[in-house]
Amino acid sequence: MKLPKPRESSTHAHGAFRLDHFQENRVPRQAVRPRIAAALAKKHTIMYTASMKFSETFIPTLREAPADAVIASHRLMFRAGMTRKLANGLFTYLPLGLRSFRKVENIIREEMNAIGALEIKPSVVAPGELWKESGRWDSMGEALLKVKNRTGADLVISPTAEEVVTGMVRDELSSYKQLPITVYQINTKYRDEIRPRYGVMRGREFTMKDAYSFHADEKSLDETYQKMERAYRRIFERCGLTALPVRADSGAMGGSGSEEFMVESEIGDNTLLLCRACEYAANVEKAGCKPDYETPAADAPPREKCEKIPTPGARTIAELCAFLKTDAKTFVKTLIYRAVNVELDLSNAPGCASLKRVNPAASAVYAEAFFAVCIRGDLDVNEVKLVAALKASAVSLAADTDVERLTGAPVGFAGPVGLAALPVVADKTVAALNDAVTGALEKDVHYRHAAYGRDFTPWLTADVRTVKAGDRCPVCGGELYEKKGNELGHIFKLGAKYTKSMNAHFLDENGVSQTAVMGCYGIGVDRTLASIIEEHHDGDGIVWPVSVAPFHVVIVPVKYEGAVKSAVDAIAASLEKSGVETLVDDRNERAGVKFNDADLIGIPFRIVVGEKNMALETPLVEVKRRGEQEAKLIPVSAVVQETARMVFDELTK
Amino acid sequence: MKLPKPRESSTHAHGAFRLDHFQENRVPRQAVRPRIAAALAKKHTIMYTASMKFSETFIPTLREAPADAVIASHRLMFRAGMTRKLANGLFTYLPLGLRSFRKVENIIREEMNAIGALEIKPSVVAPGELWKESGRWDSMGEALLKVKNRTGADLVISPTAEEVVTGMVRDELSSYKQLPITVYQINTKYRDEIRPRYGVMRGREFTMKDAYSFHADEKSLDETYQKMERAYRRIFERCGLTALPVRADSGAMGGSGSEEFMVESEIGDNTLLLCRACEYAANVEKAGCKPDYETPAADAPPREKCEKIPTPGARTIAELCAFLKTDAKTFVKTLIYRAVNVELDLSNAPGCASLKRVNPAASAVYAEAFFAVCIRGDLDVNEVKLVAALKASAVSLAADTDVERLTGAPVGFAGPVGLAALPVVADKTVAALNDAVTGALEKDVHYRHAAYGRDFTPWLTADVRTVKAGDRCPVCGGELYEKKGNELGHIFKLGAKYTKSMNAHFLDENGVSQTAVMGCYGIGVDRTLASIIEEHHDGDGIVWPVSVAPFHVVIVPVKYEGAVKSAVDAIAASLEKSGVETLVDDRNERAGVKFNDADLIGIPFRIVVGEKNMALETPLVEVKRRGEQEAKLIPVSAVVQETARMVFDELTK
Repeated sequence: MKLPKPRESSTHAHGAFRLDHFQENRVPRQAVRPRIAAALAKKHTIMYTASMKFSETFIPTLREAPADAVIASHRLMFRAGMTRKLANGLFTYLPLGLRSFRKVENIIREEMNAIGALEIKPSVVAPGELWKESGRWDSMGEALLKVKNRTGADLVISPTAEEVVTGMVRDELSSYKQLPITVYQINTKYRDEIRPRYGVMRGREFTMKDAYSFHADEKSLDETYQKMERAYRRIFERCGLTALPVRADSGAMGGSGSEEFMVESEIGDNTLLLCRACEYAANVEKAGCKPDYETPAADAPPREKCEKIPTPGARTIAELCAFLKTDAKTFVKTLIYRAVNVELDLSNAPGCASLKRVNPAASAVYAEAFFAVCIRGDLDVNEVKLVAALKASAVSLAADTDVERLTGAPVGFAGPVGLAALPVVADKTVAALNDAVTGALEKDVHYRHAAYGRDFTPWLTADVRTVKAGDRCPVCGGELYEKKGNELGHIFKLGAKYTKSMNAHFLDENGVSQTAVMGCYGIGVDRTLASIIEEHHDGDGIVWPVSVAPFHVVIVPVKYEGAVKSAVDAIAASLEKSGVETLVDDRNERAGVKFNDADLIGIPFRIVVGEKNMALETPLVEVKRRGEQEAKLIPVSAVVQETARMVFDELTK
Repeated sequence: MKLPKPRESSTHAHGAFRLDHFQENRVPRQAVRPRIAAALAKKHTIMYTASMKFSETFIPTLREAPADAVIASHRLMFRAGMTRKLANGLFTYLPLGLRSFRKVENIIREEMNAIGALEIKPSVVAPGELWKESGRWDSMGEALLKVKNRTGADLVISPTAEEVVTGMVRDELSSYKQLPITVYQINTKYRDEIRPRYGVMRGREFTMKDAYSFHADEKSLDETYQKMERAYRRIFERCGLTALPVRADSGAMGGSGSEEFMVESEIGDNTLLLCRACEYAANVEKAGCKPDYETPAADAPPREKCEKIPTPGARTIAELCAFLKTDAKTFVKTLIYRAVNVELDLSNAPGCASLKRVNPAASAVYAEAFFAVCIRGDLDVNEVKLVAALKASAVSLAADTDVERLTGAPVGFAGPVGLAALPVVADKTVAALNDAVTGALEKDVHYRHAAYGRDFTPWLTADVRTVKAGDRCPVCGGELYEKKGNELGHIFKLGAKYTKSMNAHFLDENGVSQTAVMGCYGIGVDRTLASIIEEHHDGDGIVWPVSVAPFHVVIVPVKYEGAVKSAVDAIAASLEKSGVETLVDDRNERAGVKFNDADLIGIPFRIVVGEKNMALETPLVEVKRRGEQEAKLIPVSAVVQETARMVFDELTK
């Protein structure tokens, strides 16, 4: 890839070309410095420094995607020759895909380093012992790939590394002076998904950046959590992603704050609620809303007496509404739930006198308990909120036999009035009902005029309502709407969950032993890459943001020979020297084929060099930005500087 | 890490310090350019661009190493806080260790890219199906970690990737025009070592660079093989390693050329034979030597007739020598070997008429065959050479019962004269014996005056001799000596071994289907890193070559406060801007502790900033190269440029 020698003569015959317009000595001096200075000022790595020829790389583009590729990123990563499938949920990144993958990885690394997180590299295969210590050896279920080795040792193919990192920090930690510390890895993970799909968006093996912070107190944890939140915003911004930080459920066990970074996606696992008027965004699992009811005034006149009415054949709320000619908003819907591993103290709860706490490793829990959950008739119970309210590990609707045993009636006639066999948990909406219809614990009988506080008093009142589109934003009262989202990252205050069960202690200023508190912070690298394609593509292929493009520029000679070849080689060499990553499509293919491939693989800038334009008095080349319709004709003498400027403007913005 | 503002006054009182000597605007302009220009010219990556404070990283140095750390690299990687043990054979790289690890990895990557190899990233967890296709699912034994996932799929935690890569290339390959292609990965591997030891030198999980090349013919394979050989030399040279390319055994199956890159090591697995006079170096498994005998002239007078003599009670060669008052060099020692999976055609071999070839996937082999192997009495049979000569998968000495059955005599009386029950394989040394003693296939009886070609004619003659120190170099005749070596890399012509069994075919120029030929090329990253420490350490700790040092420079303030602190911060900032990777030991520790840690972790250049030297008319700092005794005092105004120059001289040499 030597620069061709400038010709002796400065006159240019047909087919000749004045290379001295952009000799080696002119362009780099002006172009190298800004890129490097900008990179060093931002403490950025410089990863790729060589231009490449299409014929010397391996970019097997395809016209068709495999039949199972139903989303754009899956289709385009295959068609552009970025990835190939190895087995169900297992993929190989080919050279083009790996370049973009590494860029995403490196943006994450740079932003982690920028907030003082320290990179480490634990092994991917981890000792099962650590997972037994934390309890996740059993609780993680079949997604955890376990294997016994030839010596009989239990091993785990790491899906995450709380145990490994907590174990390491525990062994080194003695004093508060060593805290806080944040470490991270960007490493291979395995999760034995039952149904992997959507390509690398939901594979079995994947690469995750997982960071773990350890602190002497909650305040310090909160500081690092805030720094991570800002780093995550920068990461997704640099990747060209419109990521939405949303309040997430923090899970049942020990979490005390968490945020998910979502991208909108038709195939998203998550339902998000967003406000049309303000920045509010939350996962439905945790979303709240402004009350859409008025709590009756304390001095309101007493309602009619609560009384039983026959409701023959009417069991559903719709049937009852029709029968009683009223609205679902006047009903108290009552569902019987079974909860497991309940941490909440039930010693004074109705019907729970005989329950005993069992004592696994860390904390005493009730193995099983039943609850009657009441909510306004037009609403649905949010089981994730319910799990959190009960401090349980899971809840599910009770079996019919349990319902009959506990309510003394068939399914469909439960209600809070007179219910004594189990604790009643009421959603906050129920507290506003003072003239409600509800089940009377008898077949074909309901109560009417039931009033909260007069006719029934729940054991616990909590927000367990599923918020829906059309509800009011809890912050500003604006209208909420729904989106499907895919989670790219998650930041999470773990508190003492792992540090307690794994004994990560330190001595504080007073020489007293304390348990460290912990945060964890993950980003899926593969999924981030795929999401960039989801957000940046058109009918012709990928439209890469410059920051994560496999190459910045593709040079397409109409025919790679003669003066065109000389010009292309010289432009490529100069771009290389100025730090622009360049792919030269030197293939002996029709221009149309090369244009199609350039569009498919989505390189941000395309320079077309053709014989006719090169033969002009002032030789010209075409420069086009991917995604734009019109190409610009610019003098070949200016193309390197012009292109470098556009690339670096994007990279350093 | 802001640069402190220069003071208004240019006079300097006690404790003050003229920062304007090396302001931000002066040094970088001169220092950045050479580093970057050199890096870009060599197409090098720029990985680390931020200086760090000791208090903000995590370098848990130790006075003592764990008891099981018996070699220097293992001890020092622990003591310097580079690694920690996670379980037997599993390690975590801590931040300091990971920096050097990444530099080794990156040197390998740069040199692979420089010869046109293309980086890919297959999954670490690989489908077992591919391993069944190649036959290694069974043949690899217990070192292969296999696991069944929840859906019942067989998976492998990859120890190497011939199958995965051959499978991928097969799926894409159709025409000779696509060849040659070389791909590589630098990725996690797992090998279930029974007794992992020596730290990361022989762990269970490790990182390997494994490259695979595919070719239309042997000539093309040979070209890539030669390029790899040169790339490997550059890699080890850049790592500061004295690596020795040695001829290696190429294994039994299909190999047609291979070279190992060894470093000398007391704990090496390999015995190497090296010539005192020339460059010759070979693994004992393949080493040859000049003949140390003269083949008798064809017209030599006939020897006495071969005759039986009684040798009561003498069974070993030593006993026979004593009994017959002769030298072991006049004996034909005969050993009965059992070979398995023999590819060699035995249809006309003595005693083999009844053997049938079995037909596993690829090629027909004899499951089991016996051979009488003859060698001069003072020499040993090299079983690896024997395996290669027989094209077997393994050989072992036959059981006594087999020896008795085949020779008609107890163990100790085998000899080639009159032996008809099995094929005789003679070492070349035997062809020179025309007056030898050998077993007579009877208890307590030997032949004397046995002559090769007259009294016995082997079925096959081959080099199966174990070469030893003192033997003569096969190239120049110089004296050979032995060393223990550890293998860091291996380049290997695989031929069609995998491409045949896995059907990697292409159409040649004439449209005829051909099988691709293949090479594979590995380097262990962890082991290379550990070997660098083995070669570069002293009693105080590691002595890093600049190219792989975790930091280039450590700045040690005697006390990090006042004017010293300002100076240190300013020097660090300027070094950072010029691309020098700097660690500032800002800890509140005695200077001696900081010096010891600096020596232990082995940073190449140490700058000491003390109050007294800074208060001089021309403020001075101490600069010392790790491993040298004397520090130089140089003006603080020159320290950044001077240090940067020394660092870049090393980096770009």
